[in-house]
Amino acid sequence: MSSRSPVFQKGLLSIKDLSTNEIEEVLSESERMLKVCRSGIKADHLRNMIMATLFFEPSTRTRLSFESAMQRLGGGIIGFADPSSSSTMKGETLADTVKIVSSYSDVIVLRHPRDGAAREAAGFADVPIINAGDGAGEHPTQALLDLFTIRKEKRKLQGLKIAIVGDLKNGRTVHSLAYALARFRNDVTFIAPRQLQAPADIVSSLNEKYGQRVEMSESLDAALDADVIYMTRVQEERFKSKAEYLQFANYYNINRNFLSRSRNDVTIMHPLPRVREISPEVDSMKNSAYFRQASYGVPVRMAILKMMLSEK
Amino acid sequence: MSSRSPVFQKGLLSIKDLSTNEIEEVLSESERMLKVCRSGIKADHLRNMIMATLFFEPSTRTRLSFESAMQRLGGGIIGFADPSSSSTMKGETLADTVKIVSSYSDVIVLRHPRDGAAREAAGFADVPIINAGDGAGEHPTQALLDLFTIRKEKRKLQGLKIAIVGDLKNGRTVHSLAYALARFRNDVTFIAPRQLQAPADIVSSLNEKYGQRVEMSESLDAALDADVIYMTRVQEERFKSKAEYLQFANYYNINRNFLSRSRNDVTIMHPLPRVREISPEVDSMKNSAYFRQASYGVPVRMAILKMMLSEK
Amino acid sequence: MSSRSPVFQKGLLSIKDLSTNEIEEVLSESERMLKVCRSGIKADHLRNMIMATLFFEPSTRTRLSFESAMQRLGGGIIGFADPSSSSTMKGETLADTVKIVSSYSDVIVLRHPRDGAAREAAGFADVPIINAGDGAGEHPTQALLDLFTIRKEKRKLQGLKIAIVGDLKNGRTVHSLAYALARFRNDVTFIAPRQLQAPADIVSSLNEKYGQRVEMSESLDAALDADVIYMTRVQEERFKSKAEYLQFANYYNINRNFLSRSRNDVTIMHPLPRVREISPEVDSMKNSAYFRQASYGVPVRMAILKMMLSEK
Repeated sequence: MSSRSPVFQKGLLSIKDLSTNEIEEVLSESERMLKVCRSGIKADHLRNMIMATLFFEPSTRTRLSFESAMQRLGGGIIGFADPSSSSTMKGETLADTVKIVSSYSDVIVLRHPRDGAAREAAGFADVPIINAGDGAGEHPTQALLDLFTIRKEKRKLQGLKIAIVGDLKNGRTVHSLAYALARFRNDVTFIAPRQLQAPADIVSSLNEKYGQRVEMSESLDAALDADVIYMTRVQEERFKSKAEYLQFANYYNINRNFLSRSRNDVTIMHPLPRVREISPEVDSMKNSAYFRQASYGVPVRMAILKMMLSEK
Repeated sequence: MSSRSPVFQKGLLSIKDLSTNEIEEVLSESERMLKVCRSGIKADHLRNMIMATLFFEPSTRTRLSFESAMQRLGGGIIGFADPSSSSTMKGETLADTVKIVSSYSDVIVLRHPRDGAAREAAGFADVPIINAGDGAGEHPTQALLDLFTIRKEKRKLQGLKIAIVGDLKNGRTVHSLAYALARFRNDVTFIAPRQLQAPADIVSSLNEKYGQRVEMSESLDAALDADVIYMTRVQEERFKSKAEYLQFANYYNINRNFLSRSRNDVTIMHPLPRVREISPEVDSMKNSAYFRQASYGVPVRMAILKMMLSEK
Repeated sequence: MSSRSPVFQKGLLSIKDLSTNEIEEVLSESERMLKVCRSGIKADHLRNMIMATLFFEPSTRTRLSFESAMQRLGGGIIGFADPSSSSTMKGETLADTVKIVSSYSDVIVLRHPRDGAAREAAGFADVPIINAGDGAGEHPTQALLDLFTIRKEKRKLQGLKIAIVGDLKNGRTVHSLAYALARFRNDVTFIAPRQLQAPADIVSSLNEKYGQRVEMSESLDAALDADVIYMTRVQEERFKSKAEYLQFANYYNINRNFLSRSRNDVTIMHPLPRVREISPEVDSMKNSAYFRQASYGVPVRMAILKMMLSEK
């Protein structure tokens, strides 16, 4: 495909590697893939091709939607699902694992606990690497499905007030999302407990490289006039102690009471799983977009895999 | 398919939800699927479709036969195989997990330690749920393959004396089987240690709702004149202590000596795995039907998946 | 296929079961499969067929390359990946497991910690068993891909000096390789610490049955004039204590210094994973063939599966 970008030939490591045009190309292809899913059209683009899912850190949701996407396009799957299965790689460097698995597969989807692991892996692989989350680093396919969801819900990607809420220090999902949103003209507000606010280098990089200014607040009330509220889970596994985690676990909560004070048409998003930050009573309200958001994981990942592999 | 029942559109939660006609429809389709398996005819009915296997409790046998069935029909698989892989769902409700996974898949096969989990899941899913065992509740696809086996072995499903033996208190498999057999006219005997006899509400429900009277005994000799003896394993994991388990582990045993006293043409069945309740010396006798029974797991589950999904 | 050998109908248990002609047939078919992999030709030979991978001992590399091979030929996969998932088979004999799984699948790939487990399993299975490693026994598909690699690197399989280095006592891979090489006329040297030298019965069997004489040495310098050096890992899991393991862990090392003294065109092979026995500085040298060797795991296993199943 003449329009295929070199970025996709190398893989997808960071949302920052994509041009705005490339992001829009993914969103358009995702729309076509959504039609394929809904119509039940048989797809055979990636027949006999193999996707390896190397998950050095568990992530059922990301893994299952990738594996569904690959098989909906006719491809096959190899890999391991969690750190204990990968113990068989013990004593082996990531470089060796990636070199070997890249000779068994056409694309590698990598989840790893260490920041920068995906880019390191790409240096050794003969096939494209998709970063499915590396430490507190990035999670670009989540950012793309988040953008897709906002456009589906709001019919546009510009001129919105978007509040991102929760653990913004450790949350790779929100880092990737902020860099993705920065390509389009939106007001962005980061809402977090002071200790979990986004790292200063991310805030300044957003401003300097993309001209994206960010409001910051500790109060959920700063989201009352938002068009989109993106909630995130405070992830227990990122804290050193249970006590430290519990200090923040119940910091923010979206419930019917909050929504009676917010914009009537506010869209509530969440990468899931949620714990206590969105009350189940919200699920049946038209504002709750998080299950639709999850469902877009399949067509968006189909689009990425198809753009990356189908002309190979 | 005009004959497709609404039950199958919702899924398959309990054998009680199926009419006798629907059960017979499954058995006929299973016969056709058995021919497909044996002839090696290429089947493509469920191409690009995805079955999710969510096993919150391990069950290699049920899971592998479902996954074989789905792939023999051209479909793909996502999911997790045991509780440790599903630890990634930690902190998430069954409702949320099911909602999300149902947006990645066309059918969910659920094994869960809690009675009623499958019906609860069905309330939240956008795709059919197949109950692959919920606590001491039900296991309807096992019951259907058991019926299929009896019909293959005996050439009929009526007028038989069928003895069901073992832990009838905790055994969901035998509960589902008893409800399935109750649709056809057979003499049923429950043989169990007094403490592991079938719950009174099941015995009375069989009688009141289906007119199925059940003989009860503590002695395996009550099976000497049976046409079919259905043995079950005393499941260690259902007991509170090793000591309590050991009290019952060796209660009943089918061996060549017993078979010299039983009906010459008795059929021995077992859902497997067996531990000590059938001696290996029986395996080579014509009476032993349990490995044939296991093999029917694939065509019967192919039939169920095809009836549920192929017209979607 | 008229040329299909009865050995392949039973499965592939030991390299010793194959005639030299049969080995050459596998190598030729592997060459064709390598072209299929590289050209991206769609292959459909094993559509709807199911390969079961029963790994009672973890082995990510062997498992992933088998699963890639099966899917590149259009087939599907069932199974379990490590001992903990197979705990669900607890209390069940290998015979019962194999009987049941063989009724769900068209071929079983078995990895087991016990010597002779594969041959035992074959006695009970209704489908071919492929031995993917049994204890300190054999690993015949690894031996075939090793032969394939030597022929690709050296353009011949005769008249070579081949040094096999490392733990030759516990290494099933090298036992199978030695029996494979013995069919062709090569000089073979076993280099190992005295305590880890190859068992005497293997050395005498090579000599008596195949006329293969073996040189033995404790010094890596005995490999200086070799055409091929086959390094192996000292496997921690085969030793009783960490102390005993550490005694041998760093015994041999291939590095640039060693290669400055060896034959200029020596080929370095390794079944991987490597730990310290080959320094990473060697990876970029033309002599290092171990990643190419790993990559041949897919076409060689495709060849074996296709020869075993495609005429079924």
